Amino acid sequence: MRVAGQAMRTIWPVGESAVEIIDQTLLPHELRILRLTGLDEVAHAIKSMQVRGAPLIGATAAYGVALAIRAGHSLDDAVAILAATRPTAVNLHWALKRMRRAATSAEAAFAEAAAIADEDVAINRAIGEHGAALIAAAHRGKGPRVEILTHCNAGWLATVDWGTALAPVYRAFDDGVPLHVWVDETRPRNQGASLTAWELLQHGVPHTVIADNAGGHLMRRGMVDLCITGTDRTTATGDVANKIGTYLKALAARDNAVPFYVALPSPTIDWTLDDGDRIPIEERNPREVTHIAGWTEAGERVEVRLTPEGSPAANHAFDVTPARLVTGFITERGVCPASREGLLGLFPERRNRGAA
Amino acid sequence: MRVAGQAMRTIWPVGESAVEIIDQTLLPHELRILRLTGLDEVAHAIKSMQVRGAPLIGATAAYGVALAIRAGHSLDDAVAILAATRPTAVNLHWALKRMRRAATSAEAAFAEAAAIADEDVAINRAIGEHGAALIAAAHRGKGPRVEILTHCNAGWLATVDWGTALAPVYRAFDDGVPLHVWVDETRPRNQGASLTAWELLQHGVPHTVIADNAGGHLMRRGMVDLCITGTDRTTATGDVANKIGTYLKALAARDNAVPFYVALPSPTIDWTLDDGDRIPIEERNPREVTHIAGWTEAGERVEVRLTPEGSPAANHAFDVTPARLVTGFITERGVCPASREGLLGLFPERRNRGAA
Repeated sequence: MRVAGQAMRTIWPVGESAVEIIDQTLLPHELRILRLTGLDEVAHAIKSMQVRGAPLIGATAAYGVALAIRAGHSLDDAVAILAATRPTAVNLHWALKRMRRAATSAEAAFAEAAAIADEDVAINRAIGEHGAALIAAAHRGKGPRVEILTHCNAGWLATVDWGTALAPVYRAFDDGVPLHVWVDETRPRNQGASLTAWELLQHGVPHTVIADNAGGHLMRRGMVDLCITGTDRTTATGDVANKIGTYLKALAARDNAVPFYVALPSPTIDWTLDDGDRIPIEERNPREVTHIAGWTEAGERVEVRLTPEGSPAANHAFDVTPARLVTGFITERGVCPASREGLLGLFPERRNRGAA
Repeated sequence: MRVAGQAMRTIWPVGESAVEIIDQTLLPHELRILRLTGLDEVAHAIKSMQVRGAPLIGATAAYGVALAIRAGHSLDDAVAILAATRPTAVNLHWALKRMRRAATSAEAAFAEAAAIADEDVAINRAIGEHGAALIAAAHRGKGPRVEILTHCNAGWLATVDWGTALAPVYRAFDDGVPLHVWVDETRPRNQGASLTAWELLQHGVPHTVIADNAGGHLMRRGMVDLCITGTDRTTATGDVANKIGTYLKALAARDNAVPFYVALPSPTIDWTLDDGDRIPIEERNPREVTHIAGWTEAGERVEVRLTPEGSPAANHAFDVTPARLVTGFITERGVCPASREGLLGLFPERRNRGAA
């Protein structure tokens, strides 16, 4: 999408010896491009969330395998190291499985990584089309402006381009549908306040940042027409693992009859799982709760402590929203109910196949 | 309650010419006592949240009236200025109404303010007794440790002493019931991370700070036995206005069959209102969302920006939890259902009285 008027992706190869990424830990205050040349750098970029978002993690890991093979690592080592970086994102494992099959040479590995990246863009563009139709319908039904609430960052920064949850927003906005996005700040890492706000601002989409606590109140007061979030892993039965706090917004949406959609690129579906409560939930460093980084007026990045010394903190990074709370999935093949039958209706090739 | 082993209140008179308070905007990093000598200082202390919490606001405003009369202000002026400081807290108006009746002289005004403060302590001690019985029952039913989730700060710092939501916690803890408190950090002002964590730490109560987003996940995983929150204003029908985000936790509690209690000192009941959606919701400065203050390793208080320059923010400070989501009220007279009949059962003198 657009940054200062220019189209940009989140990752791109530099020949066959490096990839470049946006260091997302420095947004929204600085747009810094990082060049990654080896396996360790790629693993670090994923683990430290310089790249984040399930689809972008998948694409980055794929390039990581290619760079590792080019540098003489074994395929097994590369896959093992990259698989250990983030436990919840199913795209990571999906991408590594594809790479394991295709990476018969460095050339083949780079070609497969590029294919994964390009497919991600195509999938998200299609999600944007299908989701934009929902937004346009909400506008016809209600006017004058569609109010959309989103959680975390499932925008183009979370993917190679377009985003998942924000693809429909960008598409509807570019089509001229009047809309406004409520952006959950998304503690503890504030991906909403930093990344979603930044990308909407860069693209010119009207938006307002709110505390995560505020969404229920806004829905009670009729100030939200629909919610759209992303997902890090969705079961074959439609349970959705996504950024911690998603479940609370889904509850509020149901309580106020606000449609709650999840943008779901098919690589995010874990066809082997039929119970969301079996999805492993990453616990991250409590320091992400006790401390926060921001920028001073002078433009200096400073980390400050929020809690008393001596008070422990916990940092569960994801929660599971049961399928019963999800109005529908917006996939690259269209919109479907959040259920096994709904998903199989769009992905019939998965019938009777069992584990992928 | 205890600070570094010593009993302390949040406000106390210094003769009849001043009151002293804890400047709560500097907690948890510094315990600074402020002396307030006049109406403007008291109004500023309430408005800037050096004192906060509905019961403490009421007591502080009462002393503010006394100080104003001592300094020669008219009673009408003092009440008008103090009433404008915080629109949502009903205790403020309740305390000012009492002062208007009683403040026939400066001496009478100080006596009434002291009575309001002492009554608050007595009310909260009684809430602690009734609520501790619920915690003890949860312990007998479940053992080995009762897991309690609370939102914002409804501890002794929000009152003159004991607190409302935390009074049962302190009482049960002092009685030897094994318990642990999940402390919502409570964005945007982080009263949980700063104040609740600080007071629990000072008193020695086991606790863990979490992002506001985490409570739903913890309840889904069976890690919460009961929720207790405070309230800034409760209608005669049992709808609860409290810190933004309370409603989301009440939804999660219902979805997971976790009891959701609201600690309710009777001055917080607005007997004139029968619909929570008619409670005015304060909108505070968006800067509380876009910026955050904390302490550097060197002990310096620094405010940092979290959002992109150019991204607007909204800051609704309270939400309304409908009575249907509340398991019960813990009042100074006992526990009752969150309904008109429940409240009238404990406060029968309010039957057929109409507006207070």
